[in-house]
Amino acid sequence: MTPDAERTEAPSTTELSPPNRTLMGPGPSDVHPRVLRAMSTPLVGHLDPAFIDLMDEVQELLRYTFGTDNRWTIPVSGTGSAAMEAAIGNVVRPGDTVLVPTNGYFGGRMAEMARRAGGAVETVDAPWGEALDPDTVADALAEHDPDVFGFVHAETSTGVLQPEVPALTEAAHDHDALVIADTVTSLGGVELRVDEWGIDVAYAGPQKCLSCPPGASPLTLSDEAMDRVLARDEPPRSWYLDLSLLEGYWGDERSYHHTAPITNVYAIREALRLVAEEGIEARWERHERLSGALQAGVEGMGLEMNAAPAARLPSLNAVVVPDGVDDGEICDAVLERYDLEIAGGLGDLAGDVFRIGCMGYSARPENVVLTVTALGDALESAGADVDVEAGLEAVRTALR
Amino acid sequence: MTPDAERTEAPSTTELSPPNRTLMGPGPSDVHPRVLRAMSTPLVGHLDPAFIDLMDEVQELLRYTFGTDNRWTIPVSGTGSAAMEAAIGNVVRPGDTVLVPTNGYFGGRMAEMARRAGGAVETVDAPWGEALDPDTVADALAEHDPDVFGFVHAETSTGVLQPEVPALTEAAHDHDALVIADTVTSLGGVELRVDEWGIDVAYAGPQKCLSCPPGASPLTLSDEAMDRVLARDEPPRSWYLDLSLLEGYWGDERSYHHTAPITNVYAIREALRLVAEEGIEARWERHERLSGALQAGVEGMGLEMNAAPAARLPSLNAVVVPDGVDDGEICDAVLERYDLEIAGGLGDLAGDVFRIGCMGYSARPENVVLTVTALGDALESAGADVDVEAGLEAVRTALR
Repeated sequence: MTPDAERTEAPSTTELSPPNRTLMGPGPSDVHPRVLRAMSTPLVGHLDPAFIDLMDEVQELLRYTFGTDNRWTIPVSGTGSAAMEAAIGNVVRPGDTVLVPTNGYFGGRMAEMARRAGGAVETVDAPWGEALDPDTVADALAEHDPDVFGFVHAETSTGVLQPEVPALTEAAHDHDALVIADTVTSLGGVELRVDEWGIDVAYAGPQKCLSCPPGASPLTLSDEAMDRVLARDEPPRSWYLDLSLLEGYWGDERSYHHTAPITNVYAIREALRLVAEEGIEARWERHERLSGALQAGVEGMGLEMNAAPAARLPSLNAVVVPDGVDDGEICDAVLERYDLEIAGGLGDLAGDVFRIGCMGYSARPENVVLTVTALGDALESAGADVDVEAGLEAVRTALR
Repeated sequence: MTPDAERTEAPSTTELSPPNRTLMGPGPSDVHPRVLRAMSTPLVGHLDPAFIDLMDEVQELLRYTFGTDNRWTIPVSGTGSAAMEAAIGNVVRPGDTVLVPTNGYFGGRMAEMARRAGGAVETVDAPWGEALDPDTVADALAEHDPDVFGFVHAETSTGVLQPEVPALTEAAHDHDALVIADTVTSLGGVELRVDEWGIDVAYAGPQKCLSCPPGASPLTLSDEAMDRVLARDEPPRSWYLDLSLLEGYWGDERSYHHTAPITNVYAIREALRLVAEEGIEARWERHERLSGALQAGVEGMGLEMNAAPAARLPSLNAVVVPDGVDDGEICDAVLERYDLEIAGGLGDLAGDVFRIGCMGYSARPENVVLTVTALGDALESAGADVDVEAGLEAVRTALR
């Protein structure tokens, strides 16, 4: 067959029929049937008056979920990393000093994005798997006097939740630094109060605790942060993510910038409606409870959690891989035998931990039972010293 | 109500029920029911072996649709402008000279993105509503000796199709310039042969002739273009759209970069399967035929097309607004009376043209009949001198 003939022959494919997985990895999580159904809704145009009304509703629902009154609260047209780059790429100006943490994979990504925005990166150090210490942060702020301080509220790579957020934001504000929070894996699942805690900018992914397919990602900025964006001498380096241009579309004017991902906006609206129906605080409590049962099961069978109890992230549970066990083989085994997705470690923790999500619609008793069963079974088969029955009993007790 | 109380009270919203529009504007177009159904498919993880297989299929289907063997053929995780910025932001290096056209809105956007990538922009001039003249392009190439030449194959703002593409690419290659083509409104609807025509880089939107909801957008690069990207001294300014990093995910390694918009990948796969089933050449022919009927109807009722016959874009029909008529009022009237979306002009042509799409699943006889009926009716009500019956008869004749 000549190359030309190859090109003009239509590829043959079968009907879409992916396997039926249970998603307990670091994201995406299982999507609620109502959100899936919303995605099959026929489209209206991105400038249709009816769509403008939906945009208003999404913004209001996002404000509720973030705990903010910020006017600049929108879904960015891309996955979580696009919202992250929108935050960093707009707030960081060339020459700005940006202080970021070293205690996980996503702090490293912040640094990389800040550099590409023209920022000078300084770090506040903490080992992978530990939270930032407010005193260390205060020292780093005093030393570097940054324009921007970024931290990760919920580190998906380590399963660590950053406690004492107000202590960090107060310290940053003492140095007139704007605070950017990575809330990718906390929004909608873990206590987060953007305004009350003094966070200037926060971004998230929809496919974690909101249980929404990735494609439109939450971002919120205070008026002060947005003023800085609008007063930039030179435009941000991305046109697509330029908030001063997006202002025209999501602000009062509703003028064309780019075509919004309409279906993803339908989806996030429905996912956020589910948050509002459950109530944000009840939702945080559910994540605590289900994650608690998962942790009880894991520890009950004889495994160890990676993070200290005070800094454990309910939505992402990092479990230490037992000696002599290959994490990849275990993940493959639970996928094959149980159609269950969990993940291994990332970066510094590669090979050392399993990462087990407990997010949004995935945070249900049946999924916790399945996960403890499947993980225990796979570990037992691999010769690890685990007591699956004891683990499952601990789950039942915790769920009582 | 205090601000705090407002924040913690969950907003109340109703079930998603947007109006049932017929989409004959500049995009999005009507989405095929099979694509909508694909979007309600439960998710697998973005690193699931089953998803990797789907990614391979999407790449193969995209190659077929673009008319290319390019290995670097992927859906970018964002809407069409994200694919555009991925193309320009990776290929253009700081200090590069970039030659772009002035004959429409999207040439201007190319210029803006090239500047943000650090490029020095030069223009090849042509009035809005006309195609580029190959001799003018050759002169501009000789004058500026650019590193990159960008052109718009299908200008959504003017309804102009760029003919004689090989003449442009040959001239550019004589000056060792890489050629970037904006095929947002041509891919899947208008003849396009990336390899045969010597196009180095092309990007598109899924919500035009592919009739797929926006969110994952086609991009293809030749090996030569990708070599230039991989040999850059400094990384592109966007991390999210950095193709050297995306290579890890879409290339052989399939390693994590960012979470792909899984549902949008499901959708574009189904939309591209529909292209393959119809056959790309049959699809081009259908767009010609239906757009021909639409033009016959428009001209039959006494209106004028904006573009010269040789440069008319089947997928986007720019119709001159009759004297004394307000285009916005007409668009509002057809939306209200007929649930039909068409659009007014953009940029230099604001107020001067209606932009009527005829794209993908929207390119059907029933939509053409509705559009001619609704537009004629609204214009007649507004006092314009149109003969709706003659227009509809011309449609019937053209469709015979």
